[in-house]
Amino acid sequence: MKISIIKIGGNVIDFPDKLEEFLDQFSKFPGKKILVHGGGIMASRFGESLGVMPEMIDGRRITDKDTLDVVTMVYAGLINKNIVAKLQALRVNAIGMTGADGNVIRSIKRPVKGIDYGYVGDIEDVDTKLIKHLLSFDLIPVLSAITHDQQGQLLNTNADSIASALATNLAKEHEVNLYYCFNKSGVLLDEKNENSIIPLINEDIYEELKQENVIHSGMIPKLDNAFEALQKGVNHVWIGKAENLLLSTKGKLSGTIIERHRYDLY
Amino acid sequence: MKISIIKIGGNVIDFPDKLEEFLDQFSKFPGKKILVHGGGIMASRFGESLGVMPEMIDGRRITDKDTLDVVTMVYAGLINKNIVAKLQALRVNAIGMTGADGNVIRSIKRPVKGIDYGYVGDIEDVDTKLIKHLLSFDLIPVLSAITHDQQGQLLNTNADSIASALATNLAKEHEVNLYYCFNKSGVLLDEKNENSIIPLINEDIYEELKQENVIHSGMIPKLDNAFEALQKGVNHVWIGKAENLLLSTKGKLSGTIIERHRYDLY
Repeated sequence: MKISIIKIGGNVIDFPDKLEEFLDQFSKFPGKKILVHGGGIMASRFGESLGVMPEMIDGRRITDKDTLDVVTMVYAGLINKNIVAKLQALRVNAIGMTGADGNVIRSIKRPVKGIDYGYVGDIEDVDTKLIKHLLSFDLIPVLSAITHDQQGQLLNTNADSIASALATNLAKEHEVNLYYCFNKSGVLLDEKNENSIIPLINEDIYEELKQENVIHSGMIPKLDNAFEALQKGVNHVWIGKAENLLLSTKGKLSGTIIERHRYDLY
Repeated sequence: MKISIIKIGGNVIDFPDKLEEFLDQFSKFPGKKILVHGGGIMASRFGESLGVMPEMIDGRRITDKDTLDVVTMVYAGLINKNIVAKLQALRVNAIGMTGADGNVIRSIKRPVKGIDYGYVGDIEDVDTKLIKHLLSFDLIPVLSAITHDQQGQLLNTNADSIASALATNLAKEHEVNLYYCFNKSGVLLDEKNENSIIPLINEDIYEELKQENVIHSGMIPKLDNAFEALQKGVNHVWIGKAENLLLSTKGKLSGTIIERHRYDLY
């Protein structure tokens, strides 16, 4: 079975038009597929209305008990179920889930080392039995960024990590491709020029681009994660804009494909 | 396959201790089972914090757009996912859902006849394919009281109606029993005496009890719904307190069993 895992975040979810356009493309995306979504600004907005102020350290949300309730409501409730309803309208038989449902993703509350992130989960175990059953019945899992510790506690968990953990687990038995939608057209040669997409990156090219300082700062952890997924058996990782997702299946230059080896080694 | 469908409402969900005790009993409840839950006061509480005031007509919530967002967040997010996590801790392989997931329950927005209930769904179609798959894989579906119209719109839907619609659909192929947990020990001969439970009601007894005015007002629609489910093939309907649920499986007097015919007709 060939499986595509597609991750979207706030830069799609926060804009109704973009979300609609993305879901239309997702509905046409060929083959078995899984959607993973994060939260975006909606959780902060609802939290603020409830008097729960977002506290961020190093770009990460500190998840106290009230914030956990807010993200559970917004991610697993409002966003997840609206995505499911919209996909059902497009005749995609979606089923919304968290990592707690079917015990798909078990995490542990992040240990306190200097910073107490609160109810944030670091993924420990992935059990894709349910996911595989659902895919075999032509259901499309839609996962929100909530997991659990199997002791009754929900945990706020990074959506990129969920996509990657699912991908590497499923890659043990299946051909898995991972698609990260983000706010740029891909990895760019010139970060000010959205047309300067680097179409293909492998380990050798990555090393060169880092040495030449073309790839730096925030892009490095993203690509390190991508290569980690490839090392664990994922076939390729694509990063680009949500609106170009479908082009990538048509062999068109639509973003950056990350592969482990050079093409000429095949 | 023998399937039990158990419905809980605010009188369980609103009290953490009662919910914990109920989930423990639910985990021990024998055989294939489905949990259906409503909302309770939590939706009103969160709504008020967000400046969304609950508007009720004849005990029914008027669901405007903001209220729909609140119930979606609270029912399908906060309550549903916390129940799933707690069941997973009890090693019950729960999967939380709405009627939109897997297109299990399609509703239509209630037509305006005098009162505009807003985004309230009246159930049109039930498709239990996914539910049956899940049960056959030993997963335990946990449904919140949200459905969809298959045109992208989520709809707030009565949890009793969801339980009953699932039960009558599954009863076409399976032996289905329906359990409604509510705030009394059962149908009472003397409504002020919780020990005066009527253990068994069939159509003949129901007629007598109505004529003698033992059963009146709010209990009548409840029992009418129960008999409707029986007429559509449900095996028996139990009503009683959540804390007595497990007794009912041990042949103990724990609530009222509603059956279509007298025992002596069997």
